[in-house]
Amino acid sequence: MSHQARPEQVEAVVAKVKELGLRPETSLGEDRAVIGVIGGNAYAYREAFAHLPGIQEIVQITKPFKLASREWRPQDTVIDVGGVKIGGGEVVVMAGPCSVEGVEMLMETARHVAARGARILRGGAFKPRTSPYSFQGLGEEALKMMAEARAETGLKVITEVITPADVELVARYADVLQLGTRNMQNYALLQEAGRSGKPVMLKRGMSSTIEEWLLAAEYVLSQGNRNVILCERGIRTFETATRFTLDINAIPLVRELSHLPVVVDPSQGTGKWSLVGPVSLAAVAAGASGLLIEVHPHPDDALSDGAQSLDFETFDRLMEDLGRLTGALADRASLRR
Amino acid sequence: MSHQARPEQVEAVVAKVKELGLRPETSLGEDRAVIGVIGGNAYAYREAFAHLPGIQEIVQITKPFKLASREWRPQDTVIDVGGVKIGGGEVVVMAGPCSVEGVEMLMETARHVAARGARILRGGAFKPRTSPYSFQGLGEEALKMMAEARAETGLKVITEVITPADVELVARYADVLQLGTRNMQNYALLQEAGRSGKPVMLKRGMSSTIEEWLLAAEYVLSQGNRNVILCERGIRTFETATRFTLDINAIPLVRELSHLPVVVDPSQGTGKWSLVGPVSLAAVAAGASGLLIEVHPHPDDALSDGAQSLDFETFDRLMEDLGRLTGALADRASLRR
Amino acid sequence: MSHQARPEQVEAVVAKVKELGLRPETSLGEDRAVIGVIGGNAYAYREAFAHLPGIQEIVQITKPFKLASREWRPQDTVIDVGGVKIGGGEVVVMAGPCSVEGVEMLMETARHVAARGARILRGGAFKPRTSPYSFQGLGEEALKMMAEARAETGLKVITEVITPADVELVARYADVLQLGTRNMQNYALLQEAGRSGKPVMLKRGMSSTIEEWLLAAEYVLSQGNRNVILCERGIRTFETATRFTLDINAIPLVRELSHLPVVVDPSQGTGKWSLVGPVSLAAVAAGASGLLIEVHPHPDDALSDGAQSLDFETFDRLMEDLGRLTGALADRASLRR
Amino acid sequence: MSHQARPEQVEAVVAKVKELGLRPETSLGEDRAVIGVIGGNAYAYREAFAHLPGIQEIVQITKPFKLASREWRPQDTVIDVGGVKIGGGEVVVMAGPCSVEGVEMLMETARHVAARGARILRGGAFKPRTSPYSFQGLGEEALKMMAEARAETGLKVITEVITPADVELVARYADVLQLGTRNMQNYALLQEAGRSGKPVMLKRGMSSTIEEWLLAAEYVLSQGNRNVILCERGIRTFETATRFTLDINAIPLVRELSHLPVVVDPSQGTGKWSLVGPVSLAAVAAGASGLLIEVHPHPDDALSDGAQSLDFETFDRLMEDLGRLTGALADRASLRR
Repeated sequence: MSHQARPEQVEAVVAKVKELGLRPETSLGEDRAVIGVIGGNAYAYREAFAHLPGIQEIVQITKPFKLASREWRPQDTVIDVGGVKIGGGEVVVMAGPCSVEGVEMLMETARHVAARGARILRGGAFKPRTSPYSFQGLGEEALKMMAEARAETGLKVITEVITPADVELVARYADVLQLGTRNMQNYALLQEAGRSGKPVMLKRGMSSTIEEWLLAAEYVLSQGNRNVILCERGIRTFETATRFTLDINAIPLVRELSHLPVVVDPSQGTGKWSLVGPVSLAAVAAGASGLLIEVHPHPDDALSDGAQSLDFETFDRLMEDLGRLTGALADRASLRR
Repeated sequence: MSHQARPEQVEAVVAKVKELGLRPETSLGEDRAVIGVIGGNAYAYREAFAHLPGIQEIVQITKPFKLASREWRPQDTVIDVGGVKIGGGEVVVMAGPCSVEGVEMLMETARHVAARGARILRGGAFKPRTSPYSFQGLGEEALKMMAEARAETGLKVITEVITPADVELVARYADVLQLGTRNMQNYALLQEAGRSGKPVMLKRGMSSTIEEWLLAAEYVLSQGNRNVILCERGIRTFETATRFTLDINAIPLVRELSHLPVVVDPSQGTGKWSLVGPVSLAAVAAGASGLLIEVHPHPDDALSDGAQSLDFETFDRLMEDLGRLTGALADRASLRR
Repeated sequence: MSHQARPEQVEAVVAKVKELGLRPETSLGEDRAVIGVIGGNAYAYREAFAHLPGIQEIVQITKPFKLASREWRPQDTVIDVGGVKIGGGEVVVMAGPCSVEGVEMLMETARHVAARGARILRGGAFKPRTSPYSFQGLGEEALKMMAEARAETGLKVITEVITPADVELVARYADVLQLGTRNMQNYALLQEAGRSGKPVMLKRGMSSTIEEWLLAAEYVLSQGNRNVILCERGIRTFETATRFTLDINAIPLVRELSHLPVVVDPSQGTGKWSLVGPVSLAAVAAGASGLLIEVHPHPDDALSDGAQSLDFETFDRLMEDLGRLTGALADRASLRR
Repeated sequence: MSHQARPEQVEAVVAKVKELGLRPETSLGEDRAVIGVIGGNAYAYREAFAHLPGIQEIVQITKPFKLASREWRPQDTVIDVGGVKIGGGEVVVMAGPCSVEGVEMLMETARHVAARGARILRGGAFKPRTSPYSFQGLGEEALKMMAEARAETGLKVITEVITPADVELVARYADVLQLGTRNMQNYALLQEAGRSGKPVMLKRGMSSTIEEWLLAAEYVLSQGNRNVILCERGIRTFETATRFTLDINAIPLVRELSHLPVVVDPSQGTGKWSLVGPVSLAAVAAGASGLLIEVHPHPDDALSDGAQSLDFETFDRLMEDLGRLTGALADRASLRR
């Protein structure tokens, strides 16, 4: 309450708390009163108080997400994608082209990345593009090509779905549904993806707080689908020297707040291929359970995101460094209890 | 090109430009070469160059939006919503509750704001909420109530549509389809709304640049729907003392870049009712063609956004000040040619 | 406290509060305890708690600034600059070149803006420039020219001081000391400027929160200097279409939080001369007590900030519109009590 | 030029370029002209063009920093701090308390971190604090304690200087002068620190772009002082779950753009001790040449920044992990040429 709040204003707030079936706890400070609101889903009611006279500020104490929280489920969630485990000890590499541009380039990439240790093939079939005049993806044709690549290489398949009406189609081909940064708060899509039962990789909105990200995960989880993978892919900041600012802090923080596995997309998060290697290593050092990496046989000819795609040689060097890193950090002193 | 680029690297870039059917213009500086790329939709091809060796930076000169640009259409677009003109001389006030919570509160609000000069009734039927546990709106029931309020008061109706499957339903009741900040880059929704033929009010994404906002408008316009109203509603910044930072600069800037009308939502843009009045006046002084204002008969009882809703008395004062302001600025010296 | 906090952890926190001479108020929720900390300067001690086990989050309730707060001094502070009153009814225009480039251009500008109603002459003598290779100002020579312009036109003089060692020199010539955005947290400078006794105009740091800005004002006020003018000049955000994002919300919000007058710099806040007019009107409509406007007789020849300087003709139109606006809003309905 | 620019406007720009002694290169596109400006310090003149009619946008091609650039000096700069080499192969750990609070806690910390492999002792003597009511440091007394700790442990000493007048004093005791985030654009301080001849560690401004940071380094370098260490310490973004957002992308990017060594401060960059370990490993994996880590014997009793300080046990685990990491990445595949 404001320090000028009159006693009857304090009482009115207390009465409102009780009216909503919640419990008030009043604490009188030297120059102001603080009223705790306890019980049920207090979060949902906060707006009921915003206009009462004498209130200075409403501060939320309890986290608004529940199923996604580490308090709800203390142990790490490990997601099984047809035998590939995400969130366990292994760092899972998901690699492939930004967009599936044709069967040949896809097969060439799939074979190469599988040989070097990638476990999942990424590739865009439906592309959300900022400009209506940019290449929008090959759609179902691309999905079929990815299924073909899976059959040959054994790689699992992850691809983006951009609208609720496509969920059923994409789920028919993909092993993991990817929800993109522009759709993190597309609630109809979150719910439809949740209902599909497929594992969902939820990219962080480019201007979403960690709390909003976990609340978006809550939309999927509350459909009864517990297989949510979180993907940090960079946030929008004032810095324009890189396409986005990869939020490295988010990796250990989300691991504290949530039991869900966190993977990182350094291609989107940097926008520049020469930064993808160092930032991939950084992500794993910070505790990421996987990486999503754009690889293209000929990045100069890519129809989208060529600037941030690795060619095969650079990818190979990254995989080599990654192997050493994960070996060295397999038994971290800092994680011993 | 980098200042270390070798002549054959410069030639390779020039060759690539020609291969794509574009025209190169090379300019040799003291310590580096600059290659201009001219023709067609050069923007769509920029990624083709990102990987060529010797390139230091790719700089875009032409704006990527076309139908939305002032260059394409020099005169202001005026949108006719059943006789209410948006983008002409009048400042159009769209007022009403954040969510339609019931027929009584809606009718009471509609009658009040109509009597004070509002022309359009706003109200949420489908609400995109950050938490799955918050009130999500009354759906079609709310749409019917708004149609009823229109029949009685003569106000036109604007309401949000949040998923492509609902466009047809919402378009049956509403005069203007509102696309919300979380859906600014929901391209399936943009296209479906475009195809409906109804006027579309496109809110700026909370972390979208002005260029991305105009490109989102381009998605609607490119469906043959020329009735797009842009709505500035605050962007996300480091400042947390207000819910968002209303980008006042965007109003005159968008008027320079585009022929589309710009309106402002000071309720969302501030998140605090006591700031709505001053910021509304500011928006109009900066050149906004309309305002979207949350009004609630009893803001303390609102199921959503109570903190930023005006009660009737505060709304009345704002309308009074607004009348004086628009009178005073009707013939601005700064707009005389 | 975390919901897993053990009773002895709660007790340890309570004991720490008492040890520091503060008063604990414990409130037990359904699944966690909340401990209020009351008394003295609780803010300064917050770090003493950060490491205690079982604490989930430390939330600050009381504002950390005091002398700058509206609670400390309910009535508006009006600052008298040699007869020019800032923070009273009048909107005070401070106009002049970004940098003082020579006596002729300065006198020409001063005469012109004085004739159109400006009351204070602005002009840079010491320029903090991002690049060491840019023009850094004429120094004391420029101060002398400004004093000369004051003698002839009656305008008061405001100019920036960028280092503590220059405070005495600048205070000898200027009527108001300007502290720039890059120096908002240059505490040695804040204190030295405070001790000078001169009115101080404190620009908001480009990435400073409103709270930090008022704390910076507190540094000056706590030297016994009550003459602080706050200047909103745009904050840094992800939007690059304008140089900065002018935070229009900050104007009415700071007026709620503080008794100090707020002025606005639309030249810096937009970075584009064509936006200065509309944004100036917006600032005044939002409640600003003054404007700081860059005016140059020949902006194309300016040695700094030409892009955001008004020429005389544009300035004249703005002053004309400003006159109408202030007339219309002299007796705002929304400010009637 | 705008696509509506008339031929005489194009000519006027060309004439202006020549008048300034620069060289114009005109390239005529399909619907607009582009004029390249070549020669000398074209950057400094950009404002001369801002007002010319017909110009649509001015785009900077050449980087504005020179001495800091990798183009100027292709090989890595290695800075010798009394035998400790920063920027060579070794990852240099600088550890110690946020503030020097007394001789005992300082000696205890110094001995501990030295025994575990730290090479430089950090500690604040002069503290720039947001609130005038917070602890401001022990000043020269603290400098003497640090010198004493150096004498006993062999650690080198780094400490912050916050105002030009203190540079001589601080330089008498310290081996490296630290310039803090709030002072990155305190140009008088940059120049004074540059003139001292001491190695300077320049923290990135919390809202500074990488370009501005390198320009700030240029201020020091242009005084003839080549010993500049850059320190990434987190930038300010919309995310409030952590104190700042550590910009991991900046590490490899600055190494591309500049020859200067980059170190990282994960204590400031996260604001939360439990994140310091993972983010430290990430920084080194991304290519940092050193770490600046806050360590306190009893973080709960710290007078500043307790929340982000490591206790001895956590520091020890970090050093153990760091040892393995640097071993594994000593010969990175990705850095082989």
